[in-house]
Amino acid sequence: MSTERHYEREFVRTFFTSPTAVKGEEDSAKMIRSAAQLRGMQAPDVWVPDNEDATAPNMRDEGARNVAEVVAEHGAEFPGEIHPRVVWHRDSPGTRYRGFQHMLEIADPDNGAVEHIDGFVIPEVGDVDDWKKADEFITVVEHEHGLEAGSLSMSVIVESGEAELAMGDLREEMGKPSNNLERLFLLVDGEVDYTKDMRAMTPTGELPPWPELRHNTSRGASAAGLIAVDGPYDDIRDVEGYRERMVDNRAKGMTGIWSLTPGQVVEANTSPLPPESGSWLVEVDGEDVDLDEDEDGRQVYEGDDLGLEETADGYVLRVGSDEQELDAEELHEELADMASYVPSMDDIVNSMEEFEAAKEAGRGAIAMTQSATVVIDGVEVEVSRDRMWDEATYQAAQTPINLFQDVYEHRPDQHEELAEMYGADVVERAMDVGN
Amino acid sequence: MSTERHYEREFVRTFFTSPTAVKGEEDSAKMIRSAAQLRGMQAPDVWVPDNEDATAPNMRDEGARNVAEVVAEHGAEFPGEIHPRVVWHRDSPGTRYRGFQHMLEIADPDNGAVEHIDGFVIPEVGDVDDWKKADEFITVVEHEHGLEAGSLSMSVIVESGEAELAMGDLREEMGKPSNNLERLFLLVDGEVDYTKDMRAMTPTGELPPWPELRHNTSRGASAAGLIAVDGPYDDIRDVEGYRERMVDNRAKGMTGIWSLTPGQVVEANTSPLPPESGSWLVEVDGEDVDLDEDEDGRQVYEGDDLGLEETADGYVLRVGSDEQELDAEELHEELADMASYVPSMDDIVNSMEEFEAAKEAGRGAIAMTQSATVVIDGVEVEVSRDRMWDEATYQAAQTPINLFQDVYEHRPDQHEELAEMYGADVVERAMDVGN
Amino acid sequence: MSTERHYEREFVRTFFTSPTAVKGEEDSAKMIRSAAQLRGMQAPDVWVPDNEDATAPNMRDEGARNVAEVVAEHGAEFPGEIHPRVVWHRDSPGTRYRGFQHMLEIADPDNGAVEHIDGFVIPEVGDVDDWKKADEFITVVEHEHGLEAGSLSMSVIVESGEAELAMGDLREEMGKPSNNLERLFLLVDGEVDYTKDMRAMTPTGELPPWPELRHNTSRGASAAGLIAVDGPYDDIRDVEGYRERMVDNRAKGMTGIWSLTPGQVVEANTSPLPPESGSWLVEVDGEDVDLDEDEDGRQVYEGDDLGLEETADGYVLRVGSDEQELDAEELHEELADMASYVPSMDDIVNSMEEFEAAKEAGRGAIAMTQSATVVIDGVEVEVSRDRMWDEATYQAAQTPINLFQDVYEHRPDQHEELAEMYGADVVERAMDVGN
Repeated sequence: MSTERHYEREFVRTFFTSPTAVKGEEDSAKMIRSAAQLRGMQAPDVWVPDNEDATAPNMRDEGARNVAEVVAEHGAEFPGEIHPRVVWHRDSPGTRYRGFQHMLEIADPDNGAVEHIDGFVIPEVGDVDDWKKADEFITVVEHEHGLEAGSLSMSVIVESGEAELAMGDLREEMGKPSNNLERLFLLVDGEVDYTKDMRAMTPTGELPPWPELRHNTSRGASAAGLIAVDGPYDDIRDVEGYRERMVDNRAKGMTGIWSLTPGQVVEANTSPLPPESGSWLVEVDGEDVDLDEDEDGRQVYEGDDLGLEETADGYVLRVGSDEQELDAEELHEELADMASYVPSMDDIVNSMEEFEAAKEAGRGAIAMTQSATVVIDGVEVEVSRDRMWDEATYQAAQTPINLFQDVYEHRPDQHEELAEMYGADVVERAMDVGN
Repeated sequence: MSTERHYEREFVRTFFTSPTAVKGEEDSAKMIRSAAQLRGMQAPDVWVPDNEDATAPNMRDEGARNVAEVVAEHGAEFPGEIHPRVVWHRDSPGTRYRGFQHMLEIADPDNGAVEHIDGFVIPEVGDVDDWKKADEFITVVEHEHGLEAGSLSMSVIVESGEAELAMGDLREEMGKPSNNLERLFLLVDGEVDYTKDMRAMTPTGELPPWPELRHNTSRGASAAGLIAVDGPYDDIRDVEGYRERMVDNRAKGMTGIWSLTPGQVVEANTSPLPPESGSWLVEVDGEDVDLDEDEDGRQVYEGDDLGLEETADGYVLRVGSDEQELDAEELHEELADMASYVPSMDDIVNSMEEFEAAKEAGRGAIAMTQSATVVIDGVEVEVSRDRMWDEATYQAAQTPINLFQDVYEHRPDQHEELAEMYGADVVERAMDVGN
Repeated sequence: MSTERHYEREFVRTFFTSPTAVKGEEDSAKMIRSAAQLRGMQAPDVWVPDNEDATAPNMRDEGARNVAEVVAEHGAEFPGEIHPRVVWHRDSPGTRYRGFQHMLEIADPDNGAVEHIDGFVIPEVGDVDDWKKADEFITVVEHEHGLEAGSLSMSVIVESGEAELAMGDLREEMGKPSNNLERLFLLVDGEVDYTKDMRAMTPTGELPPWPELRHNTSRGASAAGLIAVDGPYDDIRDVEGYRERMVDNRAKGMTGIWSLTPGQVVEANTSPLPPESGSWLVEVDGEDVDLDEDEDGRQVYEGDDLGLEETADGYVLRVGSDEQELDAEELHEELADMASYVPSMDDIVNSMEEFEAAKEAGRGAIAMTQSATVVIDGVEVEVSRDRMWDEATYQAAQTPINLFQDVYEHRPDQHEELAEMYGADVVERAMDVGN
């Protein structure tokens, strides 16, 4: 019996796993209980009480009971979605059966948890026929417990070559009457086990970057109307590295990322949102360097790779060890080519409003200009960049706004922090634009 | 009714779109008329009168009429192929129907244009079943207008995840008796809308590089006997960036690129052709640096990252901050490893002729040598590089020659410019070699 | 008739091709005979007497006879597997028929070679239906010569877009009752002909890096239980480049590589094995720099990009042109972030033993610490890095150990060299651990 795809969220920034039972803890539900009480930027879009890797093998029955108990108690107040992860393995019928039993337990209406549970996360899936086995178990769970068919979503962890390949078939498979794969929600990369499955090795043991896997996950999600999420970033202290990974992911169309700690949740909730204030970059020898705004609003270059000198005839611009003599106009052009602007939320909203007004006035394309006073070696230069906006630019610019609107709509617990960040006026206009 | 694949060209360098109707222009066919009159290096291999994005939504009926009128008038003299782009969208039956009507209009023999029209470009396709809908409409157009079945080719713009996936199925689908997908011609990446469809974001709003998409397009074209074309390069002033993109594309097997202006057409027509004269590179710390030829034909290194000093015992070579003491032979070897040679058209033709003679004389492999006097910090060193040529080297070297021959055969309007560039003798030998 | 997958090896490091007949040699079997007598690190895991590219077209009948003769004579003593390559082409029935005849000849029991032959290598395959043709010929060869069905394996060279796509279908196709594709063994990239087939071009004529092809080959092998091997590295003198390629390949899950000379075989046999001694790296501006161990076991940084000075208040650390003032603790943390450790075989075995003991004692995760005294600009700093080991870390660490165990089991001729390299004690413990 086929059902509608039902997810609440269009974007998922954070996929936060927490153990469901911890050996040696007096109250083994302690960590899952503390996760259930996260709020605001510390609370994930999707919370995954993890009854697989994060929970000791011999404590998973207890883990399943803890999920039911804690979600029954705290689920109504939890601001994100709740998707417990159960055990599963494409190569082990025993593990699959245990996963089925844990789902039956967690979703038992007598436990009072299932009304707060949005779906289940199935790890270690294989090819698409293996995905169908998990789908079928969830169908049975729904039926046995009198739940609406398709009301529980299913997310998978992609951590094998065959699962990566399966993502190319979802669009076709999801329409078939003999499955309920329309319940699919998140495609999550699991790079630790994927690396093991691919038998990949790096000298230091750190994870390979797997750009092709992430592309294929993002594409699979796009083609099948799902949401792609990148795997865990192991080095919890390396905040800069986590941010760079997210920038790289977003350029692949993958907005969401796994978070292992509330600190990572904050980073991952914040990172895809447009910045509060705009900033300028210059590209020197293929690398982007941020300019620093001084008290007069001038954009100051602080590095050594760029030099500028005013001469009797014009200017000498040095890039690395290459020097060029330029007149004022050539210098402006050269710097305009090297510079780029990172727009703030306010800038994006402004540009969209301007374009919307132009469209109403019957114009299909308008030029948007960004200007700055750039300072290199104490020499000031006016730089301005024009960009033509047409319908396509407008629609591409909408992605971060759509994301913001989705966050704002589904996460009232973050309203205060968002208003603080952007100002109430910008938030209001950002919620209006593009509709 | 299945038909033969029919395209004229084996290589397509340029895919040039121009608006078909412009709001506010007295004569709204002005821009399409000026595009129709491009010649020589300014004229594209494939000209796409664009009745989709480049034309305002409410002017597309007029646009279709303009295409018919201008192509009827100028089509016979236009030196490239003509493939109008009509509207289409995988998610909108209304848009698809309008695209169908525009094709019917443009291909109506009463308009006198269709004899100069080589095919249609279909944007925003979805999975392969969506491609078949467009194919079917073209089949109907051919039938209704009494055209030979399969005489109109079909090119698609790949700007969705499902279309990217579809490229993996073409080889299988094209043989089926219930479609005429053998009419397929170009697979064109459309990165602006693809970025939107993948919901990808970059801080500055510039397009992500999408290396995997371009690989998959190139591979799809190779497997199905089609031609891959990269999408538009938005920053029209950034000629260097456009050239680098084309070098990167060619290393992926994608020779063609979208051009937005006649200036970009010139760049894109010229870039894949072998250079007029050879040149030397040295690789320093992973980056290729061009050597400058001085008046004595010596190759001079001008940068700071490489240093060379003659000492009593031999030489001191500095690469970055690493210094090595080397004797003359070690120095030659070290520099031979660092240097590489970019062959000219003349060089390639010479090598191929030499190898062909060797083959006739019964030898399967010969060594080709390139030598130069390299100057670093005023110190001269003789450098020579040997390369073994066997059948495989020979055949790989043929790709640029095949390209040249294809250009020369189909673009008589570029003969003069090509003869000026290479000299008549080199052109003649390049047309002879490899046959 | 379906058969079990039968390969001896779980890992293949080296795929060494040698000509089977050489024009102008008095004894045309000379090179194949010398290849047959390689031993130890010079002998490949898979030896491919090459009756395709490495042998002149008009000498291939003689080549096939030479394979049979030399393998009959030397096969019993050859320490690796033997997989002759025959001619094949997806577009040429004549070439395919000749390949079939050569397989019939080589596998003829009257020649005495087949008992030492492990399988055949089929180049230039197309889509999966083309693979089935080769499979069928091998089935016929087995039947005609009274060999056990499925006893001959089949490896393919992937050198076309359609073969790349086919690797996505193997898992499904291999189960079908109408083929014996379970005999598949190696998926080998052939970048020279792949480049030609994709019509790719680079300015200097060197091969493009094809990262996506290598990913897809590795993934295809992983999904179908096969082994992925990278293609030839043409620049035989460039040992450093060959090593870097192998590091890059292993990060993609591709352990094996084609070798063109016994020298490359030694490199490729050694490179994937864990190092004899551990070492430290620091990452400076995105690049890894090795530290040099001095006589006191201190790790000394020798470059210019990093500077350290002790001041009255603490330290000044310079990275490139950025200087930071840090106290002792901040400095330790900063350096711990920048440094990473490349574990030796001994280190890996130690960590695995430690984790196994912890597991037995009921602990699921333990911290492993690596410490060093790092010296920058003469200033000493203690650096230590902790890493949590859990089941997943343990299993990922096992890949190099599994490789070592596979090598040790199947290559007794390398035992002596391995014991010399690691010491007999480490070898013994490495064979014990993880079982």
